[in-house]
Amino acid sequence: MGSVTLSHPQVIAAVRHKATQLRIDSVRATSEAGSGHPTSCCSAADIVAALFFVVMRYDPKNPRLAGNDRFILSKGHAAPLLYAAWAEAGLFEKAELLKLRTLTSDLEGHPTPRLPFVDVATGSLGQGLPAGVGMAMSARMDGASFRVYVLMGDGESVEGSVWEAAELARHNKLDNLCAIVDVNRLGQSDPTMLQHDMEAYRSRWTGFGWHTIIVDGHDVGVLLSAFEKAAATTGQPTVILAKTLKGKGISFVEDRPDWHGKAFKKGEEAQKAIDELSKQLDPNAPTLEIRKPEPVRKHPPAAEPLAPPSYKAGESVATREAFGEALAALGKANPLVVSLDADVKNSTFTEKFGKQFPDRFLENYIAEQNMVGAAIGLAACGKIPFAATFACFLTRAYDFIRMAAIGQANIKLMGSHAGVSIGEDGPSQMGLEDMAMMCAQPGVVVLCPSDAMSTYRLVEAAAAHRGLVYMRTARPKTPILYGTDEQFRIGGSKIIRQGSGDRLTIVAAGVALVEALKAYELLKTAGITVRVIDLYSVAPIDRATLLDCARATQNLILTVEDHYEHGGIGDAVLSAVGNEGIRVHKLAVRTIPHSGKPDELLDHYGISARAIVEAAKRLI
Amino acid sequence: MGSVTLSHPQVIAAVRHKATQLRIDSVRATSEAGSGHPTSCCSAADIVAALFFVVMRYDPKNPRLAGNDRFILSKGHAAPLLYAAWAEAGLFEKAELLKLRTLTSDLEGHPTPRLPFVDVATGSLGQGLPAGVGMAMSARMDGASFRVYVLMGDGESVEGSVWEAAELARHNKLDNLCAIVDVNRLGQSDPTMLQHDMEAYRSRWTGFGWHTIIVDGHDVGVLLSAFEKAAATTGQPTVILAKTLKGKGISFVEDRPDWHGKAFKKGEEAQKAIDELSKQLDPNAPTLEIRKPEPVRKHPPAAEPLAPPSYKAGESVATREAFGEALAALGKANPLVVSLDADVKNSTFTEKFGKQFPDRFLENYIAEQNMVGAAIGLAACGKIPFAATFACFLTRAYDFIRMAAIGQANIKLMGSHAGVSIGEDGPSQMGLEDMAMMCAQPGVVVLCPSDAMSTYRLVEAAAAHRGLVYMRTARPKTPILYGTDEQFRIGGSKIIRQGSGDRLTIVAAGVALVEALKAYELLKTAGITVRVIDLYSVAPIDRATLLDCARATQNLILTVEDHYEHGGIGDAVLSAVGNEGIRVHKLAVRTIPHSGKPDELLDHYGISARAIVEAAKRLI
Repeated sequence: MGSVTLSHPQVIAAVRHKATQLRIDSVRATSEAGSGHPTSCCSAADIVAALFFVVMRYDPKNPRLAGNDRFILSKGHAAPLLYAAWAEAGLFEKAELLKLRTLTSDLEGHPTPRLPFVDVATGSLGQGLPAGVGMAMSARMDGASFRVYVLMGDGESVEGSVWEAAELARHNKLDNLCAIVDVNRLGQSDPTMLQHDMEAYRSRWTGFGWHTIIVDGHDVGVLLSAFEKAAATTGQPTVILAKTLKGKGISFVEDRPDWHGKAFKKGEEAQKAIDELSKQLDPNAPTLEIRKPEPVRKHPPAAEPLAPPSYKAGESVATREAFGEALAALGKANPLVVSLDADVKNSTFTEKFGKQFPDRFLENYIAEQNMVGAAIGLAACGKIPFAATFACFLTRAYDFIRMAAIGQANIKLMGSHAGVSIGEDGPSQMGLEDMAMMCAQPGVVVLCPSDAMSTYRLVEAAAAHRGLVYMRTARPKTPILYGTDEQFRIGGSKIIRQGSGDRLTIVAAGVALVEALKAYELLKTAGITVRVIDLYSVAPIDRATLLDCARATQNLILTVEDHYEHGGIGDAVLSAVGNEGIRVHKLAVRTIPHSGKPDELLDHYGISARAIVEAAKRLI
Repeated sequence: MGSVTLSHPQVIAAVRHKATQLRIDSVRATSEAGSGHPTSCCSAADIVAALFFVVMRYDPKNPRLAGNDRFILSKGHAAPLLYAAWAEAGLFEKAELLKLRTLTSDLEGHPTPRLPFVDVATGSLGQGLPAGVGMAMSARMDGASFRVYVLMGDGESVEGSVWEAAELARHNKLDNLCAIVDVNRLGQSDPTMLQHDMEAYRSRWTGFGWHTIIVDGHDVGVLLSAFEKAAATTGQPTVILAKTLKGKGISFVEDRPDWHGKAFKKGEEAQKAIDELSKQLDPNAPTLEIRKPEPVRKHPPAAEPLAPPSYKAGESVATREAFGEALAALGKANPLVVSLDADVKNSTFTEKFGKQFPDRFLENYIAEQNMVGAAIGLAACGKIPFAATFACFLTRAYDFIRMAAIGQANIKLMGSHAGVSIGEDGPSQMGLEDMAMMCAQPGVVVLCPSDAMSTYRLVEAAAAHRGLVYMRTARPKTPILYGTDEQFRIGGSKIIRQGSGDRLTIVAAGVALVEALKAYELLKTAGITVRVIDLYSVAPIDRATLLDCARATQNLILTVEDHYEHGGIGDAVLSAVGNEGIRVHKLAVRTIPHSGKPDELLDHYGISARAIVEAAKRLI
């Protein structure tokens, strides 16, 4: 390791010089911006300098190169340090650093993949290691030799998601993954619980089965040797626990509380810090050559067309099962497709994929945060990950989903067992806020298919779409509504019942659509004709069709959904047409539901065919 | 410990008999229901029998008694075992057990506090231990001697929230907390990662600083002795790692995969299981007497009226700061009020409370899941907990919030730094989906005050309200809008600008209201008068006032919010009046935002006074 033409002391001197330069750049940028976390940059500067200028193999002019070693700044508030490192590596001009945190620069307060050298958005703590697990898994799937480095804070390592990832990384023997904890002792508002008790950190990480190395995080020689040991370790991930000082190198803030998230005041205060640091520069330090990445294997073969679904009219198939079948077919058609589970694969039917493609399947056990985080990491390496669990348990990963939306991650999430139609298991297992949480995030596609045929086709569409797609499926078997040739597009809808004298437009999806179709028949018998729309794409929404239908039915819409009242299909419809003076009535689950039989619950919570008929009659 | 009149072997025999009875009851109930998790009940039956009939001190006729030891069934899917234990203890008739999972019984698929003996809703895994931390903290705050027992599954212990709670329990030296892990080796879809590697479990828990005891979870004598050791341990929480067999006692399912979540078929299959278990009953087992709880201290003194706020017209105060001030005042007025932080107390201003009432303040460091879970536990013990962090980081705890809503927990959450108005830190720190996720949950009160005066009064109202209240606050200082005597009620709103010729109703809250008031002046100058509503209570919403104002302004409403487009104020207004043919136009943040200056961002994302004026002119 290291630049072979240099002696060890020369390498150390050069890294120290670089680290000081990164500190200066971080101070300068944050002072110019008037905000930021320079002291959090200073504690980690030696670690980052060692990684960027000796340890990591990458092309500094091509940060998206597949063979590059990966670096995740999980402690995203140290963003200026990351930016300084890439500038120092030559990716862009140092003058750019002074645009930190402005609207016209993508050097934002916390890193996002708007920047070509950022793979995953960070800034919400505890998310880097799960993403690192995904990246390390991607390398293994591809037989690629790149290594993944994740720099975390010590305060951050209280987040439970860190320990989910720790367990999964150990279980999968990810020796290509190296975590570094910057133990600088000070959180935002207090010293951390463990402060500089390095042995307490060691007991946690070794307890979780990791190869653990404690170092002085400012001793470059020791750091380099630790990275060398990490790279030489097989069958086990390594964590380097680096004892550091917050604000290292600047005497008047070093190891002092009350300096979290504070920029030095531009002018005298900043200059004082920079002057101190400048004295630590080594003008005679030799130049370091960044190690080249190893070439990458050829890309996998191009995706083939998906085998068509084979469902037949008259059959009843649960949408969750059709999802599993489509995913398995997709696995065959597209080698980039991978799948993730959180110990419910026999309920979500991802087991169909898992059995056929065990090498492209990541079992996360009961760790939904790691599942979504690892999906983000896999996507950052070019995979198309489908992660699935019960819709309700995706709430556990909402912060990860939020950050995936910020990072425009190309992940696909499936939430099964949506709504009260799951029945006896009761409210804790019912996904009733899933559409609300997904629709809230800009750019997220939200799909709610009602039959196996549309589910199958929409899984295909999800894979083809670049970005975050959420698909909601249900537990009960429901009838096939569509033929094999029917086309479904993201942003579309289907008018599945209509006539010239329609007096009301019913908009529904999922099991509620099945109820709406029953209601249609009952109403027809009673001499009332209504229009029925299958709103399989909730976001984006087919405003034009909704508007056309509403206009044709006296500006009256009734929405039905097996979801809570707020944030689902009803509100999506209202949001789309609510500025047009159209009256939208909602049928949805309005209280915390109870255990019971599925049909009983649909009726009890007012979203059954009976309830729809009643509402329709009342409205017309 | 134990019934003093009995010998140790007699006690053991009696517990074994009880455990078998609980297994039989669990099998019978799930078979009658046609679904459920009898094998997950069987693995834990000896543990539960030991706890309920020897170890725990409680009044079986009065499960809500303050002095009772507490039991949390974190592995909520073993609900039939819990129900059987309370029936066996004499709280209700055993015949009730056969109503399991029906709409007419509160013996639901997973436990909820609809049942008097359930303190917190479980069924989403990994939530029991954080709640247990809250309960154990409550005991300490009150000087109460009850102990808290949390029964977890092994698969469950992968959830990161378990390790957040483990760290916090150790840090707070909660020796009144005892966790039991039912290590039955089998998850839902696979064996667990660690299976029966008890030493691997030990290394994790001792690594996290817990007193750790490994036992055979079916050896009652060993179990009783472990509970005795746990009770005798000071300064440290204890975990009992119990090696068990899933389906224990029923030979044809014991330790077998593919039996998760499956009831025995009513008839022959169920009878076979019951027959086997019945042979294990001991008709000669002596009766056990349940230990009485220790009497509880007097209740704290009644709450006093809150000191009035002292803000003055012309001042500018951030709503987050007013929150902190109100909370500190509330701490003085009401001894039941407690506060929780996740290492941002200097940003949310809960430090004002923490400094004055350190014994009623729980610092959770960077562990939002534990913060909300502990709040639920504190509330279950009668406290009124206010937990605060950045609004965006509450997404980390959404599953806990969901379960709090299901459990009707009396917790108060505050999310600060809402919206793009935080500025330079960028999107990862901006709460822009907080109202969407809170409004989606039935029964949750969502408050969005715009000035310090209303914030202060609404904090008071939140404490007085029984149930989950969310308050959204902002980072920037904003002007005082109201006088000291102004009243604010949950479900109310304020018309703060109106005239006879108003042509549009603008509905806003938070920093957006400040922009709306600027827009009002600009429009007035241009000869256009509009009505402005302060929608400080987003849920419940003041439909009557919205409707009145809309009617008075040509059925036209413009909503403005520093929140994403879906699930916030605009959608709440649409949902309230959207069935009346009123046209509602929304101004909200429609894309993933960027770092920048607060004012610049408000304008860039179309929610500034300028944008409001433009929209108003376009609409009128």
